[in-house]
Amino acid sequence: MKALRYSTQLQFVPDAPFEPRDGEAVVRVQLAGICNTDLEITKGYAGFRGTLGHEFVGTVVSSPNRELIGRRVAGEINAGCGRCELCLKSDPRHCRNRSVLGIKDRDGAFAEFLSLPSANLVPVPDEIEDHRAVFIEPLAAALNIREQVDLLPGMRVGIVGDGKLAQLIVLALAPSGCDLIVIGKHRDRLSLAERGGAAEVRLFAEREGIRDLDVVIEASGSPNGLSAAIEMTRPKGTVVLKSTHHAPTSLAMSRLVVDEMTIIGSRCGRFEPAIKFLESRRPDLSPLVSCRFELDEGVEAFKRAAEPGVMKVLFDVAG
Amino acid sequence: MKALRYSTQLQFVPDAPFEPRDGEAVVRVQLAGICNTDLEITKGYAGFRGTLGHEFVGTVVSSPNRELIGRRVAGEINAGCGRCELCLKSDPRHCRNRSVLGIKDRDGAFAEFLSLPSANLVPVPDEIEDHRAVFIEPLAAALNIREQVDLLPGMRVGIVGDGKLAQLIVLALAPSGCDLIVIGKHRDRLSLAERGGAAEVRLFAEREGIRDLDVVIEASGSPNGLSAAIEMTRPKGTVVLKSTHHAPTSLAMSRLVVDEMTIIGSRCGRFEPAIKFLESRRPDLSPLVSCRFELDEGVEAFKRAAEPGVMKVLFDVAG
Repeated sequence: MKALRYSTQLQFVPDAPFEPRDGEAVVRVQLAGICNTDLEITKGYAGFRGTLGHEFVGTVVSSPNRELIGRRVAGEINAGCGRCELCLKSDPRHCRNRSVLGIKDRDGAFAEFLSLPSANLVPVPDEIEDHRAVFIEPLAAALNIREQVDLLPGMRVGIVGDGKLAQLIVLALAPSGCDLIVIGKHRDRLSLAERGGAAEVRLFAEREGIRDLDVVIEASGSPNGLSAAIEMTRPKGTVVLKSTHHAPTSLAMSRLVVDEMTIIGSRCGRFEPAIKFLESRRPDLSPLVSCRFELDEGVEAFKRAAEPGVMKVLFDVAG
Repeated sequence: MKALRYSTQLQFVPDAPFEPRDGEAVVRVQLAGICNTDLEITKGYAGFRGTLGHEFVGTVVSSPNRELIGRRVAGEINAGCGRCELCLKSDPRHCRNRSVLGIKDRDGAFAEFLSLPSANLVPVPDEIEDHRAVFIEPLAAALNIREQVDLLPGMRVGIVGDGKLAQLIVLALAPSGCDLIVIGKHRDRLSLAERGGAAEVRLFAEREGIRDLDVVIEASGSPNGLSAAIEMTRPKGTVVLKSTHHAPTSLAMSRLVVDEMTIIGSRCGRFEPAIKFLESRRPDLSPLVSCRFELDEGVEAFKRAAEPGVMKVLFDVAG
C-alpha cells in the first residue's frame, strides 16, 4: 500500500507492506492531518521510525468487534500493554510499554490502512464531515486543558502561539467564560483567534505589559515560548505546557520557586468531549486548513507544513 | 551596629547605620542561620545589595504593638505593600512590591538589629530554645509542601538532596505516612535522613531503578537536580521545586508534556505550623548544625557554609 514513512528521512513508499496486528481492527484511512509533532519527529524527536501520522478519520474494514465494521471512526492514538498497573486503571495513555500511532512502535495514519485495537476506535456521527472529523484528535488535546485546570468565568487566560493547536485551544476554551488573551507572531492568525473568541490579541514582540495572568497556555511550538509564558503568569498561577520540542529548553527556574507557580504538561485528551463539541458547537474549522495533498506528494506536504504561516495540511489518502 | 553586608562582595561592617522603618518593630537578633539562598545571593542571585540573612530568632525592642515588646520572636520574611490586590487578599508573600528580609529591598538578620512590620513577628514559646527556633523559617518552608501537594499514606515520595533543607523536609513529611526515598551525595547525610524517617536512601550516582515515584521534591540546590527529579517521577506525577539557582536550568520539557507531569514551585511557608511542629514533635535538630560563628567572622562563615558536607552555619549575633 501507499505510505509516507520516516527513517533517516521522510519518504513516500508506493508498496509498503501492511500486516494488521493480532486481534486489532483495520481502518482504511480517508483523511489525515500533519501535526507539529510529525514535523518534530522528522527533526529527530521521539526517535521514531516508521509510517508517520496520528490524526485521521477512516472506515473500519475489519474488527473483532463486528459492530464497528463499515463505521466511520477516529482513533485514540495510545495503545497500552493491557497488563500493567496503569492499563488496569484504564490509563493506557501513560502505559510505559504503550505504542503510539505514528509516534512510538506503531505505524501511523499516513497510509492507506492502519491497525489499532478496536477499543481505540470511536465512531464519528454523520453530522461531522471528514474535514472536521480529522480535527477530533487535536481538539481532544485542546479540550483536555479544561480537565486539568479549573477555568472559571472571568479568569484571565493567556495562550502563547497562534498556530493550529493554539486556534483549537481558543475554540475549546471560549465557552469557559474566561478572558482569552492570545500572543502570536502573525497578524492574520491573531485576527482568526479573535473571531474564534479571544478577548484580546497581541503580537509576541509587543507583549510587554501583559502580566499577572491566572493561567497561560504555551502552544507556540517554540522553545522560547515557555519563558514568555512564565513571565506573563501571576504569582501562584499556572502554566500549561502543550508544545513538545526536540530541543532542550533553558529556563531560570527561580521565578517558578519564588512565585510558587505550577507548570502542567498536557498532551492528549478524551475523544468523546471533542466529538460532542463538534456536534453541538459546529465551529468553522475551514480557516485552519491551509492545503490538501495526496500521499505521494508527502515530502512536499511536509515542507509546506513547516513554512511560517501555514496551518493544517491534510492528506486525502483515499482520494 | 555590627552587620554582615553584601554589595560587590561580602563584608563585615562594624559600624553599619541602623534606622528602623516607619511604623515597624525593631528586633535585637539573637541567633541567625545561613541559608543556601544567602550563598546564591553572594553569587549574584536576586541582585540584592545590603545586610544578608533571613533566618533568625531575636527579642522585640520596640513595636507599635506593645504586647510584642520583650517577646522572643521569629519573623515572616516577606513585607507586602499593603495596598495591592494580593496584600488585600492576605497574601503579602507574593506582593509584586514586597520587600524580603535580607533578599529584596530590606536589610536582613545578620546584624545586631533588624526592622520588620509587627504583623510579621511570631512569638516563640519558651519550650523552643534559640538553636531550634532559628529553624522555624526553613521548617515552615519544608512544611509548606504539605499544603501544596496532597500527600497520602503509602505514596512513594522522593527527595533529591541531603542538605539541611532536604533533612528538614524529611522531618516535615515523615508524619504523612508516605514512603520517603532520599537521593543524595553524602553517605553520612543519607544516614541522618534515615534516622529522620526516610524509608530508603540512595546515592545520587546509584539512583538508577528509582522511578515511578508519585511525588519528587527537588531540594538539592543543584541545577541538575530537577532533571533527575523529573526522571524519577511517574506519569501524571508531581515534582516540587524547592531550589533557587542563579544559573538557568536546561531541560527536555517534552517528558513533562508526554507524561502530563506537574511541577510546583515552593518557597516559604506559614510559621504557625512550624512552631507547632517543633513544640509537639521536638525533633533533634542538633545534627543539622555544623558550626557557629560571630558576625565579625562572617566571611569565613560563608566560606565554611559553602563547603561540601557542611550543614547549617549559625551566627551568635548577641554573643
